[in-house]
Amino acid sequence: MPKPSFPFNKKKGLAKLKGFSGIELLLVWVFLNLMIKLLTFILAESALEPLPKKLWKHPIVKRHSAKREKSPEFLLLDRSYHHSVMKSLKGNEKRGRPDIVHFALLEALSSPLNKERLLQVYVHTVNDHVITVDPQVRLPKNYSRFVGLMEQLFEFGKIPPTRSPLLILTHETLQSLFQRIKPTFVLAFTRKGLLRTLEEAVVKISHEEKPVVMIGGFPHGHFSNKSLKLADEMVSIDVEMLETWTVTSRVIYEYERAISLPKKRLSGSVI
Amino acid sequence: MPKPSFPFNKKKGLAKLKGFSGIELLLVWVFLNLMIKLLTFILAESALEPLPKKLWKHPIVKRHSAKREKSPEFLLLDRSYHHSVMKSLKGNEKRGRPDIVHFALLEALSSPLNKERLLQVYVHTVNDHVITVDPQVRLPKNYSRFVGLMEQLFEFGKIPPTRSPLLILTHETLQSLFQRIKPTFVLAFTRKGLLRTLEEAVVKISHEEKPVVMIGGFPHGHFSNKSLKLADEMVSIDVEMLETWTVTSRVIYEYERAISLPKKRLSGSVI
Repeated sequence: MPKPSFPFNKKKGLAKLKGFSGIELLLVWVFLNLMIKLLTFILAESALEPLPKKLWKHPIVKRHSAKREKSPEFLLLDRSYHHSVMKSLKGNEKRGRPDIVHFALLEALSSPLNKERLLQVYVHTVNDHVITVDPQVRLPKNYSRFVGLMEQLFEFGKIPPTRSPLLILTHETLQSLFQRIKPTFVLAFTRKGLLRTLEEAVVKISHEEKPVVMIGGFPHGHFSNKSLKLADEMVSIDVEMLETWTVTSRVIYEYERAISLPKKRLSGSVI
Repeated sequence: MPKPSFPFNKKKGLAKLKGFSGIELLLVWVFLNLMIKLLTFILAESALEPLPKKLWKHPIVKRHSAKREKSPEFLLLDRSYHHSVMKSLKGNEKRGRPDIVHFALLEALSSPLNKERLLQVYVHTVNDHVITVDPQVRLPKNYSRFVGLMEQLFEFGKIPPTRSPLLILTHETLQSLFQRIKPTFVLAFTRKGLLRTLEEAVVKISHEEKPVVMIGGFPHGHFSNKSLKLADEMVSIDVEMLETWTVTSRVIYEYERAISLPKKRLSGSVI
């Protein structure tokens, strides 16, 4: 459990800490307990992008564009509608799934962790865009409206375009995002990682000052090596592939448990 | 933890069980450990229904019907499109949200618990329909396709209509469904329940022979008293309202933890 035990109860801990007065130890313990431990959550290499230019003139795209009453350059790539024309795209198995980003964001943003402002979410996309998500944003539950919103975001760079934005789009690599965030520990969830229960993995990062979790926002395949190099630890929490939204909801819940948030909220003792 | 401790380790337990031979106790312990504990998951009073007849002739519905190229009687009620015409419907705040059912089902069906065939899902609707969901069904991730599938289900009563069905629709009350299931314990998640952590609530039911969890498949309001009467226990796991898909994913994950499924899957020792 991440809640630090009061050092006076632990003979070993106390021995290590001798030289400090009782009041100093008490203050450290209180500080550690009250410290706000923000979790940074990154949906990485997400399958979210505008329709690539080389597809704009394809008849299937033109039909979809007419139905949506929007020019192809302002549409998102979506396998549900563009499956048959996606074969020509490099790495297409990882692309065109805005629904994955939609579900994962809904899971993340409706969590008690986010309601407590202890969660910061970023969506990094397959083409190196980064969406900075304000914890207060209320995303549409309806998929078509979510797609419309993302299309607007790619067009204007922020949402809402006219007042203080709740979603901001930047052209940025994952490396550059990490330089901004300055994490103390990056935990990546990938089938290439060591088999470990989610609980074990998350308890560990809950002790960190600035923990970052990185989850793939794509349907198949693996993180690129460039992304994996950014991780301090890679874990695989199941023997089968899990959906992005499953991992998202579980990681956030397990982090809440690790910082005793469910109990704190029920007892009304939230920081 | 639900994994029963070996009785020889517990003096008290052993004392209670005297009269049984060591081998008998061992067999009981092995049986309890290996027993398949199926969780029945009911999304109750869900906001899923065909467009009510009284709305069919409304101009907004007619426009939507023309766009979908489908007669109004075969469309679902959906607040995203029918918000302005829903005011005349009784209890409308609880209706017209197929997206809630969609997300909750995706969460439930993609869980390791379901992959192990330890989950049985039913969707009970606001108008007393029950959908029996085959654990092997692969639902569309795309919302429009999911809506199309549900429309087909309300039209034909089963999906696929021509071979052994993966989704079956019956006209049935929650009471009648419970008579079929014969649960040993029904746990309802509702803000009217006792404040309790999810862990506490789920550990308790994991000892049951046939536990049922009941979660509201609607956006606002409460279960009807008729539904609440079916519950053996009502719990509220947070001080704020949580989304249906949040509770769904957490309950299932917590149940997996309670039966040690994550560890069992990682060690390859699943029943």
